[in-house]
This record gives sequence, C-alpha cells and structure tokens, in this order.
Amino acid sequence: MIVTRTVAEFRAARDELLAGGQTAREGLGLVPTMGYLHEGHRSLMRRARAECSAVAVTIFVNPTQFGPNDDFTRYPRDEARDLEACAAEGVDLVLAPSIEEIYPEGACTTVSVGPLSRVLEGAARPGHFDGVATVVTKLFAIAGPCRGYFGQKDAQQLMVIRRLARDLVLPVDVVGCPIIREPDGLAMSSRNVYLSPEERSQALGISRGLRQAEAAWVDGVRDADSLRALVRSEIEAQPLARPEYVSLADTETLEELAGLAGPGALLSVAVRFAGTRLIDNVVLGG
Amino acid sequence: MIVTRTVAEFRAARDELLAGGQTAREGLGLVPTMGYLHEGHRSLMRRARAECSAVAVTIFVNPTQFGPNDDFTRYPRDEARDLEACAAEGVDLVLAPSIEEIYPEGACTTVSVGPLSRVLEGAARPGHFDGVATVVTKLFAIAGPCRGYFGQKDAQQLMVIRRLARDLVLPVDVVGCPIIREPDGLAMSSRNVYLSPEERSQALGISRGLRQAEAAWVDGVRDADSLRALVRSEIEAQPLARPEYVSLADTETLEELAGLAGPGALLSVAVRFAGTRLIDNVVLGG
Repeated sequence: MIVTRTVAEFRAARDELLAGGQTAREGLGLVPTMGYLHEGHRSLMRRARAECSAVAVTIFVNPTQFGPNDDFTRYPRDEARDLEACAAEGVDLVLAPSIEEIYPEGACTTVSVGPLSRVLEGAARPGHFDGVATVVTKLFAIAGPCRGYFGQKDAQQLMVIRRLARDLVLPVDVVGCPIIREPDGLAMSSRNVYLSPEERSQALGISRGLRQAEAAWVDGVRDADSLRALVRSEIEAQPLARPEYVSLADTETLEELAGLAGPGALLSVAVRFAGTRLIDNVVLGG
Repeated sequence: MIVTRTVAEFRAARDELLAGGQTAREGLGLVPTMGYLHEGHRSLMRRARAECSAVAVTIFVNPTQFGPNDDFTRYPRDEARDLEACAAEGVDLVLAPSIEEIYPEGACTTVSVGPLSRVLEGAARPGHFDGVATVVTKLFAIAGPCRGYFGQKDAQQLMVIRRLARDLVLPVDVVGCPIIREPDGLAMSSRNVYLSPEERSQALGISRGLRQAEAAWVDGVRDADSLRALVRSEIEAQPLARPEYVSLADTETLEELAGLAGPGALLSVAVRFAGTRLIDNVVLGG
C-alpha cells in the first residue's frame, strides 16, 4: 500500500497502478473519508475492492465543511490505526494530505449545490454542503475517472454528491452503500466515540424510532405526520436526546412530504446529545 | 475532424485520439469558445496545434454567463463557418453540444471564484464569472487532463480560470495567449460585428488610449491616476463611446492601484457603444 501526502505523489502512484492505458472508470475505486475509520468505511473499501482494479482511500478532515461552532479541532483522528485498516482491506493507495495541499494559498473557489444543500443538514449547518461539494470536487479532480464510494448514513451528502457529479459532468460513478450499524442498531459514526455510556445507551432511541416507523410503513401506515411522530416520540423518550429535526422527505428534492409517504421517501433525523450530534436515516420500502 | 454533440461522443473520440495510454496533459489541447470564431480563436488553435498531440475545440454559447439584459439570444452564431475554421486549423475534435447536454435537467451546481469575480467585469455583469467558472469546470471535466488555451483579451476571465484550475486541483495547464488585433488596432471580438461603421471607427479610441498609456508608462509615467486619465480622455473624445470602467489594477488581486503602477499592472477598460459592449486591456511592461 502506497501512502501519499501530495496530489502529485498520488497522481503518479495512481498512473502507475492503472498503467496499461486503462481509462475505464471501473479502474479506480475512490473512498473519500475524514479518517477515524470504522466498519462503515471498511464496508466501502470492500465494495470498491470487489468492483475496481485499484482502490484509493483519502483521509482528510476537511475544515470548510465545519461551521465555527462545529467540532473541527476536536474531530477524532488516528492515522496509524486508519492506515492499518486500509492495509487490512487491501487498499492500494492512500492520500493523507495537509490542509495546504487541498486548499492552496489564496484558494477562493467554492462549489455549491443549490436547493438540496439548504435543507435539513444544510439548514442546521450553514455552509456545510458547500464545504463538502468543494472538497469532493477537488478529490474527484485529483483521482480522475473513478467510482466514488459513499455511505447512505450521510444520505443528504450522498444526494449532493450525486447531483454535483452529474451537474459538473464529472467522469465519476457515485456509488451509495448501505448504513453499517453496531449489533444493537446504532449507526456507525466516527462521532460515536464522543458519547458517554449513558448517551450511548439512549442514542439507541434513534435507530429504534426509525425501525418502528419503517415497520409501521410496511404495515400500511402512510401518513407522513404519523410516521414522523413515531420517530420523534421514541427519541424524545430519551431524556438526554434533543432532536434537531425529524424529516420525511422526497428522495429527489428533499422537500418535506405533507400527505402520504410512498416508497423511496427518506426518513431522517439529527439528534443532539450534549456536544455530540448524530444523524441517521432509513429509506421507506428501500 | 470529428464533430461531436454529446459528452459521451466527445469522450469516446478523445480516448481514441489519445489511445496508446498517453496520460500526460500535453496530450490534449482544449480551446473552449462561444463560437463565431475569429482570428483570436484561431491563434489559440494554432498554439494548441503546435504544443499538443491532439486539439479539441468546444463551441458553446453558455447561457449562465449572460445576465438578463445581456445579449445571449442575439449573440452571433455561425456553426458552419466555425467548423470550417476549425478544420482549416487542423483541429482534431469539436464538441458543439446542446444546452441540455451541458446543463442536465435539474442542474443546480455552481462554481464561484471569490473576490476576483466581483470587480470590473464581475461588478458590471453580476453572476457573469459564476457562469464562466461553472461552464469551464464542466468543459475541463469533459476534456480530462489537458492544456486549456484562453485569450488575454478576456484578462479577468483568464485570471478566474487560472484560479479555479489551481483551487480545484484540476489536471489542467491554463495557457494565456496574446490579444489578436485588427490591422488598425481594434481587439478582435465576436461582438465587433454589432458595431455600425461609425461606432467601429470610434472604437479605435480604446486601443489608441491603451497604447498611449502604455507608451507613457514606458516613458516613465507611473502615476496610476494619470495613466487611467490618459485612456479615459482618449475614449471620451469619441462621442458614441460610454466608458464603463477604466481600471489600472494589481495583476494578482485586481485591486485598483492607488499610487504608482509597476510592471505587470493590468490596464483594462469596458466601453459601451449603444447596445454593444467592448473590452480591451494591456499589461504594462508586459
């Protein structure tokens, strides 16, 4: 496994790996991450490993997607462990660059993905998706033609990235991969390490609420308000949990559903436990 | 010469042209244009032809860089003549796409290049450079690794494109090429066809003013206000000319110079003749 720190090193190693004139986008599988890798990230690497002839992982905690009150500086980092995880999954190439390498001096170019970026996570975290869209555009430009693997856990992020790849005509296939959960149901997240044991236990209300709403939908409950209320009551039953939003929205536009929820609707939540913010979701009938 | 209408056709033809595993960015020379090609565009094609193993021209009148009061619908078009010009210059590949091909349904992604985009042309034409940056990012993504050729006539556009290519880490070398002028000094522009004979004659005040200021600078005049005044008085001596701005600015930041103008300063103007807007510039000591 080759670990690179600069764009030039990464591109040289990529060209070496793909040598032989392979230009098909199936050649390279790209797994962009912010590090502190867990089983969710590893599932993306395994999928890429199975589908692509070379697999690259980027590890970069992107400052521009954090707001001034977000957890950029305390975001968990453990590069040595991350590199072990990559090696164990058969990754060929890692890019772990400095901030200056990704944001050159005087950088002032921003990529914005319209309305999709302004609701839900975008409303709660102004500027967040501009930061995501900008860094992902750069990572795709660095990688060149590829398949890009992203988790469904960040459902809105996945939608934003699909939209930008299509809108900017990037030579990238965006592949969404299922949420990976702990055995008790908690969606895997690098931020789970912030939780106290009590918060960790109460956080199960999130996946439980989503599961109950999903089961209700399967049983024929279609009223959007009722489904949202099911999730909300399960979360609010946890004294340490403060729900930021419980959304049931159209999967294409992310507009909140007013009446009935058909198959494919996205039921998603953000919940705070003190300084820790968790998100989770389920696609109804998905 | 292969003429393509879709991104997929273009990419297939490009891969064919560059076959043999050539991945160096010198392989492809890209000349993005809005068509109605003149000698200025042809000089870009010749430069690309001399420097690259394959040359591609795009012909696309980009709607998003025109404001509501701009001349998008009446912008001159003559594809048959453009294709002849490309063929005559030894171009290998043309992309002349529909609007829908470049802006897929629901497209809502915008690329913005900070402060550089908000002065001069950006102040006169709000949103103009977001449109330019967005379409050029797409065209670069369509082309893949390449050298991109742009004229110095649109000096600020060239700066914006250099900045975005650097900021987004695109695998593109941006090459700026000298302004091409008519024998009498008028900078070549597709918009020159709008000018009445009288306007055409008075428009010479623009290049004359720039030349006089350049000569004064060479003679030792360094005061920015004096240099701007020289240009302005020459333009204002033309009764049909309405100068929009006469700028003498830092070449890196485009901030207006307050005191003395050193080598490399950009002296640029925008002038209206009735419905026609012309721009021109000179780099002092350049």
